Amino acid sequence: MTRACESDRVIKVLAFDTFGTVTDWHSGVSRVLADVFPGVDASLLALQWRLTYAPTLAEVEAGAREWSLLDDLHREQLDRVLRENHGISPSVEQLDAAVHAWHVIPGWPDAADSIRRLKTRFVVSALSNGNVALLTEMAKHNGFEWDFIGGADLWRHYKPAPQVYLGIVELMQAEPHEVLMVATHVSDLEAARSCGLQTAYVERPLEWGPVDKPESRCDDDLFHATGMDDLADQLGC
Amino acid sequence: MTRACESDRVIKVLAFDTFGTVTDWHSGVSRVLADVFPGVDASLLALQWRLTYAPTLAEVEAGAREWSLLDDLHREQLDRVLRENHGISPSVEQLDAAVHAWHVIPGWPDAADSIRRLKTRFVVSALSNGNVALLTEMAKHNGFEWDFIGGADLWRHYKPAPQVYLGIVELMQAEPHEVLMVATHVSDLEAARSCGLQTAYVERPLEWGPVDKPESRCDDDLFHATGMDDLADQLGC
Repeated sequence: MTRACESDRVIKVLAFDTFGTVTDWHSGVSRVLADVFPGVDASLLALQWRLTYAPTLAEVEAGAREWSLLDDLHREQLDRVLRENHGISPSVEQLDAAVHAWHVIPGWPDAADSIRRLKTRFVVSALSNGNVALLTEMAKHNGFEWDFIGGADLWRHYKPAPQVYLGIVELMQAEPHEVLMVATHVSDLEAARSCGLQTAYVERPLEWGPVDKPESRCDDDLFHATGMDDLADQLGC
Repeated sequence: MTRACESDRVIKVLAFDTFGTVTDWHSGVSRVLADVFPGVDASLLALQWRLTYAPTLAEVEAGAREWSLLDDLHREQLDRVLRENHGISPSVEQLDAAVHAWHVIPGWPDAADSIRRLKTRFVVSALSNGNVALLTEMAKHNGFEWDFIGGADLWRHYKPAPQVYLGIVELMQAEPHEVLMVATHVSDLEAARSCGLQTAYVERPLEWGPVDKPESRCDDDLFHATGMDDLADQLGC
């Protein structure tokens, strides 16, 4: 599935999307929601909550609202979904517990080991719309040995804003083509490519749990991998 | 040497100065300078170079010059010291090699292992005037398993500017008193305390190689440790 290409030789930095690509948010968040809101269809609620994600971040990037940490956006949107779709008025403690679920969502089974393999040859960084504290807790919880954690709060911008992709390039003193963006989301990879980064698509067919992923495939990536372990194989790690 | 104090119980994040506290810059830089500039007293040159560090960063913070990466400031100051003190006009390649020496200075013997011990109980971060790329390379070279790398370029400010100390507090979603600044430099610790952080002094008597350290002791730190291993002992790791 790999394109024979010389350009992979100059890759120095791998930048990973986290929610969906490295971690299994649907399972992790559903599990916590089932505990916190007994009687609710937790899998459905997790999907409804996640569907508010991209539009809310887009509002921030459009300037329609001021920059806020993902934790705060998560809280606001869950509260709205619970009230509007489930007739539930959550307590502060319930919202705290649910928002925190994103800090400790489990890695896909190949994630921690693949990061260890990949960091032997590359600088391996998270590049996520999560904030640094969230991602740091997620990494410790799962044993992700990132070389660096690129959280959206470093730039006060959310992907797919170019400031995030160009931000990691600058911090790493790299050229855009020396950075490989790795994600299971076509929109993330397209935005990275438009900033000059190279891209790798990782299949995560179970990302949305019981429903199909809303994005279609794309054939413009330098690598297409069935998982992070396959990507490590393809990169010779 | 530890003060009996309840407050250590609320420490969540350890923020480490790197040059001198975690790594032995005098040995590492002297070794490279000896290779790059044969015939020069490399130990003396390393000391002369390092003595330009604090005043140059202070110029940036005073607004007398625009913000620049430490790599660029290092290059400029070494060039000046070589010309003014040694009558040498260095080549670009010589400056490249010497500036890069700071990316791979060796850790003190207790550093990598102490970070591994400390991260079992705390979030352990670099908090350095080095830039992120420099610190990432240093970490990989030495096996420093930081949870996060706080480089000065994240804030475009140099310690002892308060933006750096308050910056790591904000990124970690912590309160200032939940962060313990660890350094072998009194000025760094004093500035951290003035921002509300707790502080730990680590003895590194050999930091300046053949000459005594220019700073005197201070008794206002919550911890005083003979090394990072001693600090890990005192913190129960």
